[in-house]
Amino acid sequence: MVDEHADGRRRVVIENVSPEIDGGRFAIKRVVGETVEVEADVFADGHDSVACRILYWQDKAKRQSSPMKLVGNDRWRGEFVVSTIGQYHYTVEGWIDPFQTWRNGLQKRVAAKQDVRVELLVGADLIDAAASRAAGEDASLLRDWAQRVRESKAQARTAAIALEEDLLNLVRRHPNRELASRYEKQLCVTVDREKARFSTWYEVFPRSCSPEAGHHGSFRDCEAWIPYIASMGFDVVYFPPIHPIGRSFRKGKNNSTDALPSDVGSPWAIGAAEGGHKSIHAELGAPEDFRRLVAKAREHGLEVALDIALQCAPDHPYVKEHREWFRARPDGTIQYAENPPKKYQDIYPLDFENANWRGLWNELKSIVEFWIGHGVLIFRVDNPHTKSFGFWEWAINEIKQLHPDALFLAEAFTRPQVMYWLAKSGFSQSYTYFTWRNTKQELTEYFTQLTQTNVREYFRPNLWPNTPDILPEFLQIGGRAAFMVRLILAATLSASYGIYGPAFELCENTPLGPGSEEYLNSEKYELKHWDLKSQKSLRNLIASINQIRKGHAALQSNRNLRFHPTDNPSILCYSKTTDDFSDAIVVIVNLDSFHRQSGWVELDLGGLGVNSGHPFQMHDLLSEGRFLWQGSRSYVELTPESLPAHILHVRRWAHSERDFDYYL
Amino acid sequence: MVDEHADGRRRVVIENVSPEIDGGRFAIKRVVGETVEVEADVFADGHDSVACRILYWQDKAKRQSSPMKLVGNDRWRGEFVVSTIGQYHYTVEGWIDPFQTWRNGLQKRVAAKQDVRVELLVGADLIDAAASRAAGEDASLLRDWAQRVRESKAQARTAAIALEEDLLNLVRRHPNRELASRYEKQLCVTVDREKARFSTWYEVFPRSCSPEAGHHGSFRDCEAWIPYIASMGFDVVYFPPIHPIGRSFRKGKNNSTDALPSDVGSPWAIGAAEGGHKSIHAELGAPEDFRRLVAKAREHGLEVALDIALQCAPDHPYVKEHREWFRARPDGTIQYAENPPKKYQDIYPLDFENANWRGLWNELKSIVEFWIGHGVLIFRVDNPHTKSFGFWEWAINEIKQLHPDALFLAEAFTRPQVMYWLAKSGFSQSYTYFTWRNTKQELTEYFTQLTQTNVREYFRPNLWPNTPDILPEFLQIGGRAAFMVRLILAATLSASYGIYGPAFELCENTPLGPGSEEYLNSEKYELKHWDLKSQKSLRNLIASINQIRKGHAALQSNRNLRFHPTDNPSILCYSKTTDDFSDAIVVIVNLDSFHRQSGWVELDLGGLGVNSGHPFQMHDLLSEGRFLWQGSRSYVELTPESLPAHILHVRRWAHSERDFDYYL
Repeated sequence: MVDEHADGRRRVVIENVSPEIDGGRFAIKRVVGETVEVEADVFADGHDSVACRILYWQDKAKRQSSPMKLVGNDRWRGEFVVSTIGQYHYTVEGWIDPFQTWRNGLQKRVAAKQDVRVELLVGADLIDAAASRAAGEDASLLRDWAQRVRESKAQARTAAIALEEDLLNLVRRHPNRELASRYEKQLCVTVDREKARFSTWYEVFPRSCSPEAGHHGSFRDCEAWIPYIASMGFDVVYFPPIHPIGRSFRKGKNNSTDALPSDVGSPWAIGAAEGGHKSIHAELGAPEDFRRLVAKAREHGLEVALDIALQCAPDHPYVKEHREWFRARPDGTIQYAENPPKKYQDIYPLDFENANWRGLWNELKSIVEFWIGHGVLIFRVDNPHTKSFGFWEWAINEIKQLHPDALFLAEAFTRPQVMYWLAKSGFSQSYTYFTWRNTKQELTEYFTQLTQTNVREYFRPNLWPNTPDILPEFLQIGGRAAFMVRLILAATLSASYGIYGPAFELCENTPLGPGSEEYLNSEKYELKHWDLKSQKSLRNLIASINQIRKGHAALQSNRNLRFHPTDNPSILCYSKTTDDFSDAIVVIVNLDSFHRQSGWVELDLGGLGVNSGHPFQMHDLLSEGRFLWQGSRSYVELTPESLPAHILHVRRWAHSERDFDYYL
Repeated sequence: MVDEHADGRRRVVIENVSPEIDGGRFAIKRVVGETVEVEADVFADGHDSVACRILYWQDKAKRQSSPMKLVGNDRWRGEFVVSTIGQYHYTVEGWIDPFQTWRNGLQKRVAAKQDVRVELLVGADLIDAAASRAAGEDASLLRDWAQRVRESKAQARTAAIALEEDLLNLVRRHPNRELASRYEKQLCVTVDREKARFSTWYEVFPRSCSPEAGHHGSFRDCEAWIPYIASMGFDVVYFPPIHPIGRSFRKGKNNSTDALPSDVGSPWAIGAAEGGHKSIHAELGAPEDFRRLVAKAREHGLEVALDIALQCAPDHPYVKEHREWFRARPDGTIQYAENPPKKYQDIYPLDFENANWRGLWNELKSIVEFWIGHGVLIFRVDNPHTKSFGFWEWAINEIKQLHPDALFLAEAFTRPQVMYWLAKSGFSQSYTYFTWRNTKQELTEYFTQLTQTNVREYFRPNLWPNTPDILPEFLQIGGRAAFMVRLILAATLSASYGIYGPAFELCENTPLGPGSEEYLNSEKYELKHWDLKSQKSLRNLIASINQIRKGHAALQSNRNLRFHPTDNPSILCYSKTTDDFSDAIVVIVNLDSFHRQSGWVELDLGGLGVNSGHPFQMHDLLSEGRFLWQGSRSYVELTPESLPAHILHVRRWAHSERDFDYYL
């Protein structure tokens, strides 16, 4: 346990450093400009004062440091800002501070009226030692000070000189770190661009974008949709796979195994004679059409995200070229995907245990790099939990070294440990259980776990009220009001959310059958023709909500999510604020999409930066209503069919009554 | 993050292994014969079954393994027994189990009446693969089985053959661990002898053992006390330092700085012209007297523990021989101990930052080795937190490599992180805050932390109701009943406890002054003459309680300490059981040493192994009273002046009514 070559004179201990994921095995995550608040237990034997600091650095850059302060009970805290995309490292360094120790003692001795002659000489030696570590003006100032302490005759005056605050600050600038201890681990931060934290996604099938019903849409058709999507305030437009679709065992409408020749198949059955993951389905267009679409989207403030689904249709070129990447069955056929007794004969999974796994890893990574070459930097990864974990950790790390602005969203709807492991391995964002969390208790518990525990250091939730695979029962039975509730929850509980449209804004909610979460006539297996101008569309509400998200920094992070008690189980109340309370939003949602609900909410005013003695204005950003509240308890009443929620901007009594009048 | 040379085909992930202290930086602690229950999150991508096991080994011994079972949500659990004193290592290994995966699938396919011909061939291949890893009878059994599966014609019958439980067990004996993952850390267990967990200490000053008042006691006098101490059921007798006592700045009675020539001084002011830490104070006797005393104690079931106080009186030989081990002051004197403005001029602390720190470390370690050479294996270390932490970790580790049965008790009354750090560094037992925890809430919170969190893996509490340094206010004001309360709490809350006697059993409780925790006329500075036969002595109660501790395994460990609610804040109720409930003790204490208190206790019967539908007998081991209880709620009433507690042995309704009658 003890290193024979270590210097046994290093007396400071540093432990329980946070944030730290799995003993430093994984990086924490931040976006550019954010702060990393570091805490540690730092102490030494005996009664000597200690001091400590954070050391942090980027891969090849110089080490920087940031001071730490005692918060109590041997716990120290400091922070640093990550200002550049990429990897940062951090650790903690601590050392004995003999001058501070000596100074504390001197104060007590002076107060006890002791003879401090020898003590003052001890102090002068310490000041001289600091001088010898300093240079220039500091050195000569310190030497002068030491001399004054040595030469002054009157003890009381000398002690006063030695205790001057300026001297303390001067000595502190030149600590003796020869015997400093360094925390044994170097911890890591992955710094992403801001979109990793704050993003608003719209999923759309380009093949359904044709203006004419029954026609296969193209990238050109999709271009025409860009202004529509942008007008709702989205900033990521995500396409299901755009590659050639397999013909063998192609699925027909409603996932039927008997496809008609006219059936278009599932975009996730990737690969045909004309190409695989690096090719584009012919009817969508040519590579230049895709690049045009990416450019057009960018003009409208939208980034294109592509789907990475690492599986092959039986016609995929890999099947011929790399038979070794698939598992053979004793009858000579290739093992198709299955979840017994279900069989998915249109899909061959890749065998990550094959002997040529290095070849496979390199090829799969090159798919992502290929599309980065086409201007795409955001990838929604299909079922990453059914591919080897080691591959993801390696591939994401490799790609981000060259493309640190690449982002990966993990579509893993599986057990919690697996979802968290993928996030720790490098995924920038993750799908969540939000899709099935409907009650006040479910939402409170789940989002407390995601935002108030260690999980928040590496798992960035991206909430989806629906996906092409999931039409949740809540939407099936709750009608338009249910869509409004789930939209508002998704958009305000998390800084990142997305919808599968236009199914969502058009409140499409017919399931394949009772107990099924599949859509009837699912877009996964056929072309759809959507009436974007429908009266029941939620596009205006979506636009309002996304506008509110853009205007309120509090909604662009999950750090300060906090739930507030209400006396009605159907009324959920939570708030988000910036760290400095310069922005504070309170959301109150009626979770019952059928009935008017009313009750009392009990706000934790301190958590909103509100002085409990002053009235404050609540400005409903959805209805434009303005309410003057005072104290923590307020009555609310929400009617599902009109608007099932308040999104309240807290306007605090600023500086004078005049300001307050102005707000009203 | 990803090792380029690793085999990317290892698909199993192992994380969150417990117990694990500070990411494996420190060992957990056990005593011989105890179990280490290991848990881990183990999972792989996709839907394949996984299997895992604990690997454990002693330094040079062969690796052993123990199976782990799924407890739910990807969490696995197993255990192993540590059967030898010394160091054990453990880790977790996991692998994909293709046969189990295949078997689960086959069951579902058969239930769905699918054609399973090819599946059966897949299974036969898997069985053959297991055969190739097996030898002897297993190999041929497996090969036969594979052949039967291949050759059998009727699918239903073949499937039945392939699904036989015996086959599953046979294949499981020969798993393919080629691509197994190993948890990246090797964790460590320090295995001590049983006394590390269960010990009963008596502290006594040998110099006060003279039968004649005013005479300096000797080891020979102390021999006469051994039967008395043993009669109370103690198994460790601990002596304050037995070394020559310094003369310069010697402290007089009541810590006076003006000692008279007749004053004997503090045993902790170690060292004089005639010797230091390896010498014996002349008036106590010669080395052979000490060895006789150690032998006499052993005859009575008592082990002698010595005090290791690493500090020097100004007369200590080290001060001349190793001036470099002490800190010089600018006036040429040596820095004495101080806690400004208090000065302890009779004590020189050692300077652990001196350049010859290696020489110092080796010498200090040799002190412990010297006394091990005299038959002592238990050391109570005085103020370890004022010596360098690195020294302790090194020294205890070095000593235990040669003497794994050596035990160290840390007398560190300081901040929690420091106390825990010392325990993690290697101390076998630790003093605690028990001395100042008096109320129900204080005791419940503190002992829940010590016994129900990770702390229990490395911190073994040793409770002291008093010490020569501490006469707590509770004893000062509460009289004899207070001594009884604190004795019972110490002896039953913790498997290890100790008293400073005879001050304790004689209920000595006069403080130096108001607000002081020092004894008036403290034995630290003068010889005492104790009346062991005093009427008010608690020796019979102590003997009873220690007898109960010896007879009840539940009281010999803290693992299953559990608090039960009561409706009276002065009544504390807790229980201890063995893991298998073969022994269960309920303790109910009246914490108010002045008034009779009564109330209802609400037992968690499940936590006692009691069937809530059956009556059970509570046998008060102190009063010999027997009560028939049923259900969780019972009324109790405790009178401080008679007996302020019940120590109840739970006698469950065993097998028949006849058994039960017998108990009554």
